Amino acid sequence: MSYVKSLTCKECGQNYEAKAYHVCEFCFGPLEVSYDYDAISRSISRESIASGPLSIWRYRDLLPVEGSDYVSLGAGFTPLVRAERLGRALGLDDLWIKNDTLNPTGSFKDRVVSVALTRARELGLKVAACASTGNLANSVAAHAAWANMDSYVFVPANLERAKIITTAIYGGNLIAIDGNYDDVNRLCAEIASEVPDWAFVNVNVRTYYSEGSKTLAFEVAEQLGWQSPDHVVVPVASGSQLTKIHKGFNELYRVGLLDKEPKVRISGAQAAGCSPVASAFDQGVDVIRPVKPDTIAKSLAIGNPADGYYALDIVRKTGGAFGSVSDDEILDGIRLLARTEGIFAETAGGVTIATLAKLVKAGVVQKGEKTVAYVTGNGLKTVEALAPTTGPTITVGPSLDGFFDFLNSQRRSSK
Amino acid sequence: MSYVKSLTCKECGQNYEAKAYHVCEFCFGPLEVSYDYDAISRSISRESIASGPLSIWRYRDLLPVEGSDYVSLGAGFTPLVRAERLGRALGLDDLWIKNDTLNPTGSFKDRVVSVALTRARELGLKVAACASTGNLANSVAAHAAWANMDSYVFVPANLERAKIITTAIYGGNLIAIDGNYDDVNRLCAEIASEVPDWAFVNVNVRTYYSEGSKTLAFEVAEQLGWQSPDHVVVPVASGSQLTKIHKGFNELYRVGLLDKEPKVRISGAQAAGCSPVASAFDQGVDVIRPVKPDTIAKSLAIGNPADGYYALDIVRKTGGAFGSVSDDEILDGIRLLARTEGIFAETAGGVTIATLAKLVKAGVVQKGEKTVAYVTGNGLKTVEALAPTTGPTITVGPSLDGFFDFLNSQRRSSK
Ligand SMILES: Cc1ncc(COP(=O)(O)O)c(C=O)c1O
Ligand SMILES: Cc1ncc(COP(=O)(O)O)c(C=O)c1O
Ligand SMILES: [Zn+2]
Ligand SMILES: [Zn+2]
Repeated sequence: MSYVKSLTCKECGQNYEAKAYHVCEFCFGPLEVSYDYDAISRSISRESIASGPLSIWRYRDLLPVEGSDYVSLGAGFTPLVRAERLGRALGLDDLWIKNDTLNPTGSFKDRVVSVALTRARELGLKVAACASTGNLANSVAAHAAWANMDSYVFVPANLERAKIITTAIYGGNLIAIDGNYDDVNRLCAEIASEVPDWAFVNVNVRTYYSEGSKTLAFEVAEQLGWQSPDHVVVPVASGSQLTKIHKGFNELYRVGLLDKEPKVRISGAQAAGCSPVASAFDQGVDVIRPVKPDTIAKSLAIGNPADGYYALDIVRKTGGAFGSVSDDEILDGIRLLARTEGIFAETAGGVTIATLAKLVKAGVVQKGEKTVAYVTGNGLKTVEALAPTTGPTITVGPSLDGFFDFLNSQRRSSK
Repeated sequence: MSYVKSLTCKECGQNYEAKAYHVCEFCFGPLEVSYDYDAISRSISRESIASGPLSIWRYRDLLPVEGSDYVSLGAGFTPLVRAERLGRALGLDDLWIKNDTLNPTGSFKDRVVSVALTRARELGLKVAACASTGNLANSVAAHAAWANMDSYVFVPANLERAKIITTAIYGGNLIAIDGNYDDVNRLCAEIASEVPDWAFVNVNVRTYYSEGSKTLAFEVAEQLGWQSPDHVVVPVASGSQLTKIHKGFNELYRVGLLDKEPKVRISGAQAAGCSPVASAFDQGVDVIRPVKPDTIAKSLAIGNPADGYYALDIVRKTGGAFGSVSDDEILDGIRLLARTEGIFAETAGGVTIATLAKLVKAGVVQKGEKTVAYVTGNGLKTVEALAPTTGPTITVGPSLDGFFDFLNSQRRSSK
């Protein structure tokens, strides 16, 4: 039972059957899932959701699948935590962190992959594939293993050993390509058209895949007691997640789950070393100029973002802003979040928190706004980014004297 | 409001006030928290629990705290997943994995630290401390940061850089000691008696700390629909967790949450390179001979386990067994779990799964038993253990030909 009406071209409005299509035949515009919201309104309720599983699948009526044979490692329903101490540090009275570090493979990618592979299996596609430099590779390999699907995950050969391991461990095919990420991407687009019976999660089933990110809005609203926040800050790579968070809040109102029409200001966060969308925002232009990424935030390092244009449009329309932050600011953001809220985020989370800090200073995010910052990946994945700047407070010999000398000097200096 | 009656010596039965005591003044036996179970029975119900938070604190009536001002990052209520594919691989019909990799800092230690620091704060102790080689350090630093408590975490100076970073990031005092883990431990015992106003989570507040592990039993029973399993497999370092899982199931029955008296067989898992308790079990003796650990499962590398005697006793009494596994078997266990269930565990999880496989072969864990394996730490924490044996399937150039040559040869060889 599915409420999907069609796939609709975002540019020309042409409709397509809900198959493995992702691009309009007429204008090459991207496709977007359209639902029968009236029918959903009649079936969905706060109670039906509350009695569902503690995962993204509690919102299945608003996801583009037919059955309930989910490819699921339990993605979603991650904590929304009231960040009092971080809020105080930044000067915000009502700050919340959506802690998506606690997904099955440690990033929000589990949401989109779970939706993509569930739909892929419904469409009869039996092989999971993707090009990735990290989080997506990880998640596709893990979900495919669980679902007993073959998988082919493509990565640049010079990827950090740790990222190779956390994907290879799941036992699918991990194809290292002699070349950079752009080479891998191009190759995957070519391969995808040769093997139409494979599900390349971010190519031929991307239309379904990206819908998974709506759950980042659904959960926040439910966790706030069926209320939308005033402002959200979202990290931007391709821009997909940001557009789907926007769609998610609006859908909740459309199907009657929110009493008030959401007026969520949406702001985007990028690394200065890869900020094509933030630059377009700053310059007040519509055209997003591709860049060659150079940042420690590798998970956000997409120089030519597929949904950048739409993300820019939403940020402008909702009265948000874009910010971009240096590598040092990213590390400061990671540290600040850890030290105030006990949450260890990967570099993408550092981008979000550092950008939030900047937007507060700039007067964009305001003291009294109910603000949600999306922290989308686990710090254990990018430990090496902190290595140069993070170490023990002190190293001493194994004697009481050594330690108490340190303690006393510390106490003296804090007076 | 607390249901704690006293702290009771496990050896001589002497009772103590519920303060920061952990050892009996008379016989030096360890202390254990005693509760007023009749009073708890009157107040607790399946419904009251279901309406509580999605964390260990839903079981607060059975935890040794007075108030509800918890030091909590949200530990607990992790998924219990039906492991059909792993079960099939091992020859088990009703296998479940308690996936404790999804705790806030990636291990079950968040449960015990949350309880320890909550109680420590109630007792007026304002500084958090511990000796550790990894998971505990991580968890104490994170919880202390969140609670705005000072922390002093002691580690051997030669610890892996990654473990230093994932603790230092939280900004407490990280004291590296020139010496091995035993030196660190000894030093901490000395320091603890010099600064009685500090909460050394596994020294002076250990009696409270260890109670946190009961939630591993509570959650499993609730998640099975208020049923106890037939058999559980638990990793053993100090042995504390195993004894508290036993206590947890019995308490649920005692306070009326289980209809049937639990008959849970409890089996213990150790690394062959540090298996003092498993050796005593094999030899049929009561005395646990300390060993010098030599295993990749560093989180389980306690050569002289404080609760080893009690763990041994429980395993014998409940009709379980101990197993121990080599480093290669540990790595195979990690891979098998990842490839069947999509769960990436640290070395301790590899110990559990590999031991489970052995106990099935030995006829100890039986095909039809409802069996729960406790997977207690996240694989992202011990990536380096896999480095020598885990890599890409193949490395090829960025051309269609290169990839399809590989694909075709793979298809030929699978015929
Ligand atoms: C951790 C993390 N956060 C955020 C993003 C941004 O997602 P999007 O490409 O939808 O903008 C990514 C994308 O790769 C990511 O890995
Ligand atoms: C991941 C993990 N699992 C299991 C254990 C075993 O706990 P216990 O010392 O209670 O036996 C530890 C202890 O350090 C651990 O870090
Ligand atoms: Zn079109
Ligand atoms: Zn005693």
